[in-house]
Amino acid sequence: MTKKIAIIHGPNLNLLGTREPDHYGTETLAEIETHISALAAELACEVSFFQSNVEGEIVTAIQQAGGADGIVLNAGAYTHTSVAIRDAIAAIPAPVVEVHLSNVTARESFRHTSLIAPVCKGLIAGFGGGSYLLALRALVSAE
Amino acid sequence: MTKKIAIIHGPNLNLLGTREPDHYGTETLAEIETHISALAAELACEVSFFQSNVEGEIVTAIQQAGGADGIVLNAGAYTHTSVAIRDAIAAIPAPVVEVHLSNVTARESFRHTSLIAPVCKGLIAGFGGGSYLLALRALVSAE
Amino acid sequence: MTKKIAIIHGPNLNLLGTREPDHYGTETLAEIETHISALAAELACEVSFFQSNVEGEIVTAIQQAGGADGIVLNAGAYTHTSVAIRDAIAAIPAPVVEVHLSNVTARESFRHTSLIAPVCKGLIAGFGGGSYLLALRALVSAE
Amino acid sequence: MTKKIAIIHGPNLNLLGTREPDHYGTETLAEIETHISALAAELACEVSFFQSNVEGEIVTAIQQAGGADGIVLNAGAYTHTSVAIRDAIAAIPAPVVEVHLSNVTARESFRHTSLIAPVCKGLIAGFGGGSYLLALRALVSAE
Amino acid sequence: MTKKIAIIHGPNLNLLGTREPDHYGTETLAEIETHISALAAELACEVSFFQSNVEGEIVTAIQQAGGADGIVLNAGAYTHTSVAIRDAIAAIPAPVVEVHLSNVTARESFRHTSLIAPVCKGLIAGFGGGSYLLALRALVSAE
Amino acid sequence: MTKKIAIIHGPNLNLLGTREPDHYGTETLAEIETHISALAAELACEVSFFQSNVEGEIVTAIQQAGGADGIVLNAGAYTHTSVAIRDAIAAIPAPVVEVHLSNVTARESFRHTSLIAPVCKGLIAGFGGGSYLLALRALVSAE
Amino acid sequence: MTKKIAIIHGPNLNLLGTREPDHYGTETLAEIETHISALAAELACEVSFFQSNVEGEIVTAIQQAGGADGIVLNAGAYTHTSVAIRDAIAAIPAPVVEVHLSNVTARESFRHTSLIAPVCKGLIAGFGGGSYLLALRALVSAE
Amino acid sequence: MTKKIAIIHGPNLNLLGTREPDHYGTETLAEIETHISALAAELACEVSFFQSNVEGEIVTAIQQAGGADGIVLNAGAYTHTSVAIRDAIAAIPAPVVEVHLSNVTARESFRHTSLIAPVCKGLIAGFGGGSYLLALRALVSAE
Amino acid sequence: MTKKIAIIHGPNLNLLGTREPDHYGTETLAEIETHISALAAELACEVSFFQSNVEGEIVTAIQQAGGADGIVLNAGAYTHTSVAIRDAIAAIPAPVVEVHLSNVTARESFRHTSLIAPVCKGLIAGFGGGSYLLALRALVSAE
Amino acid sequence: MTKKIAIIHGPNLNLLGTREPDHYGTETLAEIETHISALAAELACEVSFFQSNVEGEIVTAIQQAGGADGIVLNAGAYTHTSVAIRDAIAAIPAPVVEVHLSNVTARESFRHTSLIAPVCKGLIAGFGGGSYLLALRALVSAE
Amino acid sequence: MTKKIAIIHGPNLNLLGTREPDHYGTETLAEIETHISALAAELACEVSFFQSNVEGEIVTAIQQAGGADGIVLNAGAYTHTSVAIRDAIAAIPAPVVEVHLSNVTARESFRHTSLIAPVCKGLIAGFGGGSYLLALRALVSAE
Amino acid sequence: MTKKIAIIHGPNLNLLGTREPDHYGTETLAEIETHISALAAELACEVSFFQSNVEGEIVTAIQQAGGADGIVLNAGAYTHTSVAIRDAIAAIPAPVVEVHLSNVTARESFRHTSLIAPVCKGLIAGFGGGSYLLALRALVSAE
Repeated sequence: MTKKIAIIHGPNLNLLGTREPDHYGTETLAEIETHISALAAELACEVSFFQSNVEGEIVTAIQQAGGADGIVLNAGAYTHTSVAIRDAIAAIPAPVVEVHLSNVTARESFRHTSLIAPVCKGLIAGFGGGSYLLALRALVSAE
Repeated sequence: MTKKIAIIHGPNLNLLGTREPDHYGTETLAEIETHISALAAELACEVSFFQSNVEGEIVTAIQQAGGADGIVLNAGAYTHTSVAIRDAIAAIPAPVVEVHLSNVTARESFRHTSLIAPVCKGLIAGFGGGSYLLALRALVSAE
Repeated sequence: MTKKIAIIHGPNLNLLGTREPDHYGTETLAEIETHISALAAELACEVSFFQSNVEGEIVTAIQQAGGADGIVLNAGAYTHTSVAIRDAIAAIPAPVVEVHLSNVTARESFRHTSLIAPVCKGLIAGFGGGSYLLALRALVSAE
Repeated sequence: MTKKIAIIHGPNLNLLGTREPDHYGTETLAEIETHISALAAELACEVSFFQSNVEGEIVTAIQQAGGADGIVLNAGAYTHTSVAIRDAIAAIPAPVVEVHLSNVTARESFRHTSLIAPVCKGLIAGFGGGSYLLALRALVSAE
Repeated sequence: MTKKIAIIHGPNLNLLGTREPDHYGTETLAEIETHISALAAELACEVSFFQSNVEGEIVTAIQQAGGADGIVLNAGAYTHTSVAIRDAIAAIPAPVVEVHLSNVTARESFRHTSLIAPVCKGLIAGFGGGSYLLALRALVSAE
Repeated sequence: MTKKIAIIHGPNLNLLGTREPDHYGTETLAEIETHISALAAELACEVSFFQSNVEGEIVTAIQQAGGADGIVLNAGAYTHTSVAIRDAIAAIPAPVVEVHLSNVTARESFRHTSLIAPVCKGLIAGFGGGSYLLALRALVSAE
Repeated sequence: MTKKIAIIHGPNLNLLGTREPDHYGTETLAEIETHISALAAELACEVSFFQSNVEGEIVTAIQQAGGADGIVLNAGAYTHTSVAIRDAIAAIPAPVVEVHLSNVTARESFRHTSLIAPVCKGLIAGFGGGSYLLALRALVSAE
Repeated sequence: MTKKIAIIHGPNLNLLGTREPDHYGTETLAEIETHISALAAELACEVSFFQSNVEGEIVTAIQQAGGADGIVLNAGAYTHTSVAIRDAIAAIPAPVVEVHLSNVTARESFRHTSLIAPVCKGLIAGFGGGSYLLALRALVSAE
Repeated sequence: MTKKIAIIHGPNLNLLGTREPDHYGTETLAEIETHISALAAELACEVSFFQSNVEGEIVTAIQQAGGADGIVLNAGAYTHTSVAIRDAIAAIPAPVVEVHLSNVTARESFRHTSLIAPVCKGLIAGFGGGSYLLALRALVSAE
Repeated sequence: MTKKIAIIHGPNLNLLGTREPDHYGTETLAEIETHISALAAELACEVSFFQSNVEGEIVTAIQQAGGADGIVLNAGAYTHTSVAIRDAIAAIPAPVVEVHLSNVTARESFRHTSLIAPVCKGLIAGFGGGSYLLALRALVSAE
Repeated sequence: MTKKIAIIHGPNLNLLGTREPDHYGTETLAEIETHISALAAELACEVSFFQSNVEGEIVTAIQQAGGADGIVLNAGAYTHTSVAIRDAIAAIPAPVVEVHLSNVTARESFRHTSLIAPVCKGLIAGFGGGSYLLALRALVSAE
Repeated sequence: MTKKIAIIHGPNLNLLGTREPDHYGTETLAEIETHISALAAELACEVSFFQSNVEGEIVTAIQQAGGADGIVLNAGAYTHTSVAIRDAIAAIPAPVVEVHLSNVTARESFRHTSLIAPVCKGLIAGFGGGSYLLALRALVSAE
């Protein structure tokens, strides 16, 4: 059966391409989503996309994707501050993979702590838009 | 005169009954609200209900209930991270009782700190849906 | 069958009524116990009372009440320093509810940590003598 | 050319005038905005106003004001907890001045840390509504 | 009127003279009390003595001396661990002077913190048995 | 000459056998003391036993055993909180061996610190009732 | 009546213009004082200037300016280490505004803590020499 | 040209399959290497394998692979303690991807800090042997 | 032989009488020195006085009084920050008694640490100007 | 059946007898091993010995002794720094007893933390070479 | 051309020879300066000497030596507390070598942190007066 | 008699010249050793060289050089993590001088702590290969 994977982007990721290119590169969010869709086609799975700057809307999106086969979550800044998103992940059956474009461990110390990582299945960081692609593969290849 | 009490539920509490039953039990939020309404009838007070996953909407709800005779607040995950909710509580005249379904002190260490407790009237935790009922009694019996 | 509940008061609570009325109110311990007895009669349960300034005597009292249907414990200052009381609570089958007259989270930082809370069933704080009454209800209504 | 300055107010600032007057004074937000508009007229610049209790809506407002000549930001409680607002400030070209009505360093210790200050151009605190006026001058006089 | 001063010694002070003479000298507790009595005679005040190894008995002793004109308290090891003794001091009207034989700040770091000092009138340390004599003078000369 | 060894048990050890068998096993304190007596007979030394839940009574017991050839001390919960017991150990000539039934380092973090260990001769933990037997051997075989 | 404002500069500010221009710009202290004097003329107030590298001389200067209508203080490095300057500010009636040329929150972590801020009226940082001008306006416009 | 990738395994990974299967699964290191080789064939790159329990031998292995097109490094326990491995990674031109079989953020707190992550290109954790495969893809697809 | 005692006052003590009377009382430094001189006459010892706001001048004053029979030192704010004064005390043979007018342990947390206490003979705090008198007695009565 | 026990010594223990005799006594490692062999004969068990200064070689030795009936491990300095040795202990079925010659809790603070203790069966410290003998008894007498 | 090197000594170094000889030896400052002058003659460079107990005078001395070919600075106690001296070093072009007579890392923990080291060229400690001589060589041999 | 000095280099120093030239310069280890040999000839002492990436091999090398007249040790990354090397230094009679090429205090915070410095004779850092030369002089000139 076709697997369904939800891709959820957190705050400020709508600015990708123009925002701090040293950390985030010049690829836009639309371009990344195009690459994800292409890989999804190759892997014969279905993907949906959601972006919000509002923590609580991300909580709701995770709840609504709770029955999917997996969630790829780039929680952005909320990675480091949101117990609510953590609780949403812990509350649903779908496995969640945390992704980051940049290698967050090489940046400010407040970015070294992830409140959500302990309740995620795994973590992929540092490969730009490629982080999403690796996460999609990881979720689709899991049985 | 009939006392008016606002009941405010924070993020992920809409999932009660299915979410991590080890911590939260199998009672749904609707069932809890039914019990609260029954007790309110018995105590001859009026209750209103509000739930949101969005921190700022809870801030607004607290502001709007500022003239009530009391607020029962289960801020969920925002208990541990929200200075904004704390400031809203401090800004209004209505007494607020902080409630939790589970005994948060027996869980992860980041749940041991409550940013909002110092500006609440009191704290009740660990009695499942019963925490709300005790809080309602506490507010109604206060003169 | 009639439930048996032990009420245990820790150090300095014998001074209630005269001691720091800003934090503790003007009600004496005897008055609080009178209210507890009245509620116990209403709820058809049996209550016993014990107060001591000595940590080890409170440990012993908890051990001796281990077979009761519940313990309401205001450990006072020992809440924040006593591993021995914590161990006694963990060692017995009776559920223990931690109570405080004042909202301890709004006071000195060394009062923000409770060593005993993680092994108690629940926590009620901030309602003066009413904290005991709510705890009694919580224990009696639990099945 | 006429400079455009966006004034952004964070959570609970809509309550100004009634909220904790010891810290915040009795001036309302509307009165402060009237003074800002008057000074803007004197300095021949254009100002816009925005207030929200929702963290993510403030993130979006900062993104949308990214092309202005400057932003005066009173992030309120989110000053101390929001990495998302910090990231929004770092992502845009407009210089941001952090303002506070009260001297936050003289209050609770969790208000001593500003997550957003390191990515702002400057900081002005302690002058009540006057903090906004000084910030407006600072942004307009910068070349 | 003759002032009444209570002298209260904490744990292990009954061993003075044989215990770790590097820190505590060779004077026995009886000898120190003889010197105190002599000075009391000279200053025309009345002194009583109490020693216990049990924290809770010291709490009780402080409560019972609450109506005296002053208390000289060497809480020994409990200085660093007892919130209960602190609460007893705060609960009574009599001024309490904290004394130590040795200069505790020059010893192990866990002896650098005094839980009771903030609620005492003053602190005298480092003068052997003379610390008690200075404390007696301080209490008697205060008006 | 026959060596005299004092065995001192701290708080809650009177409950052994029923208390948290995962940590402490099913052997009762009486059974452990029987094994100790048997080994003492084999090693031709004399043993005495003392148990108390009261910190200050343990201080006194250590003082009174100060002239023995050794003390086996299971201070239980007071291991982690009692400066008074530490001071008593440091004040006497008899060597003290700290014992624990369980491997305390594998439990809660507040059990990882021993205030008394630095003034003891040695430390044995993790062998159930056998910890006492090893400590007895260690004290008797020391010259 | 003409307001009198004292401008006090701390250690190394005599080097402005040559010292670390990345942080402090190329304007000299003399040039900054010229701008201050010009603004003072415009605002019809009187300003005096003082600079010292010696902590205690700054303490004395603050004491001597205690009767002025306000003090603009750039305490430089002593901002982060001097309790003595803090005590001097707290001891006088004149309101003090803390200023910094650079945004100190964006620099080394030991510069993030200001010992003097809690006893100042307000704080202005990040506007180069303009920080002094804004502070002067703030003091003169206060009634 | 064919890319050359070095796969380096740290301490105790030779035990995979028998060691703590809850954390590490039942796949052996040989089985993981077979899967890596198969994927390498598919991606037309060349892989080499190295395992050691000795920190310094891993340092040397990293130095020797410095000219490769990439290194996949599972430093195991040394991830959390080795500055020497960090320095070796920083000293070579080859990009290094840190991998872990388990989600280390969900385990003991001393495993939450990675000394080597800040000098790696990226991080992949939580997918069992699949973590290596994703890392290989990431290195080969990078241009 | 007549004992010589140096009295050294630190920063801001020249303001006594007007400065923060809640903490320091209304007695001026001149009045305190008059009381000290009177007691010195009674005890037949000789006293000298020195006050400075400059840390290094206090270091020099301590060096110059190194041959006296004792020093009474109120280092004021430098108590909490000056390693230089500590080193001066450690470098001289004269015993030093640290005094404070107020009970510093009851004030801000940065006043709870004394860098100089460990190298002083003793500590007296909380008795206003009387602290000096008790210190003088302590030094003169020591043999 | 004859029990097999592996004795593993960590870094610098080859120097025993000459190294810091205050901490470690004058007994050489060979002498300690002679005593262990004698006790093994008495207890009818088989012992093997291994010493290395290299952390990874100790990891390997523990892996190779994984099938023994027990391991007596003096990890020396690696006790405080090696997660790799901890992981090796956790990975094997054999019970491990941690031993130390000296009472490590009475030495530098970095020796107070044992990374390996939580995964060991028990801990014996402070009895010189006798610590090994007690550990051997503990392992042989366990069923 | 002849190199000019400034030698700057901080607080209490004027006491060398009599002060705590365990840490500082018996050589006087004059003797050390004689040795420095002799080595300067041998290396054909010019040296000047300055000593002060006042932090701000050392700041000024560093500013005045800013054009020299190098500064040898023994900041004594100010090493650990002075941001002002750090800023002076960072503000001048001359390279500064931090020296200490004793091995400060083997003393109290507050001496383990040097605020000035990060802005110095290098650090030499532990060789008594020889530390100055090595620093002089280091500065003169640098090109 | 000819002095014998052992020069010991830690991990990654074999890469000098190519590794991070910003921190370590372009001089190779061979070139540094050539300069050391030349100075040794001038000072008429004998030097030996050893390099290893393995912590335990450095421990062994220090043990083997224990009878030399001195050791110059650049422990590299192990400076910050190795208790084993510290113990080896403390176990031998030869004086050890800790050297670093770069000024480690100006780099990442985990490089600010040296576990080995407290047991070394002295410390020299920041002079590139010249640090070794100064250390050699320091050891040879010591009597």
